[in-house]
Amino acid sequence: MIKVSHSQGEYPVLFEPFSEAVKGLPEDSFVVTDENVARLWGHVLPADLPLLVLPPGEQTKSLIWLERVSAWLANEGASRKSTVVALGGGVIGDLTGFVAATYMRGVPYIQLPTTLLAQVDSSVGGKVAVDIPDGKNLVGAFHPPVRVSIDAKTLETLSLRQFRNGMAEVWKYAFIMDSSLMAALQEQPSDIQPILRTCIEHKARIVKEDEFETQGLRAILNYGHTVGHALEQATGYRKLLHGEAISIGMAVEAHLGERLGITPQRTAETVMRCLQRQGLPVTFTEPLEPERLLEVMKKDKKASRGRLAFSLLTQIGGCKLVENVPEQEVLESLNKLWAA
Amino acid sequence: MIKVSHSQGEYPVLFEPFSEAVKGLPEDSFVVTDENVARLWGHVLPADLPLLVLPPGEQTKSLIWLERVSAWLANEGASRKSTVVALGGGVIGDLTGFVAATYMRGVPYIQLPTTLLAQVDSSVGGKVAVDIPDGKNLVGAFHPPVRVSIDAKTLETLSLRQFRNGMAEVWKYAFIMDSSLMAALQEQPSDIQPILRTCIEHKARIVKEDEFETQGLRAILNYGHTVGHALEQATGYRKLLHGEAISIGMAVEAHLGERLGITPQRTAETVMRCLQRQGLPVTFTEPLEPERLLEVMKKDKKASRGRLAFSLLTQIGGCKLVENVPEQEVLESLNKLWAA
Repeated sequence: MIKVSHSQGEYPVLFEPFSEAVKGLPEDSFVVTDENVARLWGHVLPADLPLLVLPPGEQTKSLIWLERVSAWLANEGASRKSTVVALGGGVIGDLTGFVAATYMRGVPYIQLPTTLLAQVDSSVGGKVAVDIPDGKNLVGAFHPPVRVSIDAKTLETLSLRQFRNGMAEVWKYAFIMDSSLMAALQEQPSDIQPILRTCIEHKARIVKEDEFETQGLRAILNYGHTVGHALEQATGYRKLLHGEAISIGMAVEAHLGERLGITPQRTAETVMRCLQRQGLPVTFTEPLEPERLLEVMKKDKKASRGRLAFSLLTQIGGCKLVENVPEQEVLESLNKLWAA
Repeated sequence: MIKVSHSQGEYPVLFEPFSEAVKGLPEDSFVVTDENVARLWGHVLPADLPLLVLPPGEQTKSLIWLERVSAWLANEGASRKSTVVALGGGVIGDLTGFVAATYMRGVPYIQLPTTLLAQVDSSVGGKVAVDIPDGKNLVGAFHPPVRVSIDAKTLETLSLRQFRNGMAEVWKYAFIMDSSLMAALQEQPSDIQPILRTCIEHKARIVKEDEFETQGLRAILNYGHTVGHALEQATGYRKLLHGEAISIGMAVEAHLGERLGITPQRTAETVMRCLQRQGLPVTFTEPLEPERLLEVMKKDKKASRGRLAFSLLTQIGGCKLVENVPEQEVLESLNKLWAA
């Protein structure tokens, strides 16, 4: 069990079978999931537990679905004292968490993440949001869950693509802050659980120090995400999974760091080799103008009045937040990778 | 100046001309208003201040407009450090406040309320929300403003109907907690400013004690609102202003209190006489089934698992929260007033 502290209290991240987690749900619980997860995990839920099954995919992380889930809760009689349960990957967790943050001005929620990506990243830390056409996660809240329960068996049900999707965030922790994790990953471990714990412990520590991303610490977790979010948005969230987009983003931002003299030379090469060995993309072959990506980045949450900020590597296992990065440097890095 | 304390800090409610308030806005401010207010108060804003003008009316308090305002902010380059300014009545304040609560997971906002209703009630206390078809204010947040500035001149621009709309909330404070305010109001005061201050001071004290409406204290402010919200929703927010709906609601709930033996006999008569003298409605003549209103109430935030809770008068100038009120009693009170 890992404890995550935040400004209003703390919550546990438990490693237990979902069948156990479900037994511990408050009586007045309402479960939200998607079609894929319902097929795999629906059987663990008691038949009398209210359940809403949504279509899978990033398109569901929208204000339209926020309204539909809220309406469902109202019609099912959910009150301010009810608990909302997110059973699924990052999309279900982010959407359901934002519903919980705003339904009747806020109700408690529990995360039962079913993908490696959600377990290692989005289910912990209280960031919830939906996308709007003008930006990914542009409308959201900080709303910590009351509990996160992770079932190791979920990893067996993931497709290889979904597994790699989560591994992109795992590599991120290695690159930005943990050279021992880097060494462990390079040995291609068969058991991913201890690695998962390490990543969650890193995140818990950062969230405790800088819950609202105002101290410049939590923002280091955005390595690869400035470029990655822009790629996701520019391709309509359809072509690239989040982990694939940030994998390309980490490659671009390693190049960028080298260009700016912040990242040691040849680091980008190492980053790209690790990601490619994991089966993750480090470049993007679709026709997509670097200038267009830049425009998207300037509207991102991580920018300030159109000025770009990046979490850049200072070594393998270290990084820092760099503000006011010149647009031209970003364009050059994007162009370099496109040409690769 | 009145200070309002909350869990994250405090903010001032200032009485000053908007021309002064505008001078004190942060450089990086973005103003949201509606067409009516823009016509009356647009001239006080500097020409280079980004301004978004929305259609007036409760219909604007929706997730669709949340998305449009958020998209506007993104396109104007608003960052996490920007300040959003709500210039208008309760609809603009609630919508803009909720945009501020969720845009990039939360940015600061300033309230410049232009109606008596917004000044006396919605601009203070941090409750922000939008309506969905299944319930008024059903999706929202607690997000305190960083400042509220009230310009006394705004009251001169209000229609009589809008002025009475605000007076309904003023009478509410008299009925639930302040017999001296009751006496002052019965003398038909010509200067409303001291009365406005009294109401805001009451609200500030309650918000400080019970910001998140979990202690049973803030909920007393809902006197008239359980029935009032149901009326607003059942009539599609088109026929009744908020103050008109809660005026009818206060009459019905005074009757209800008498039926339950909580409110002294003949109190409802006094409540209705005061409201009628103010030109406010105490009954509703449209064909509307009491049973339908009851269904709406059971889905309201103030209900818990379909059980109804009411703030009921214990005397003129006192009240208490009563939970588990039998549906039949509510129906009888509604029927009585419909027949009146």
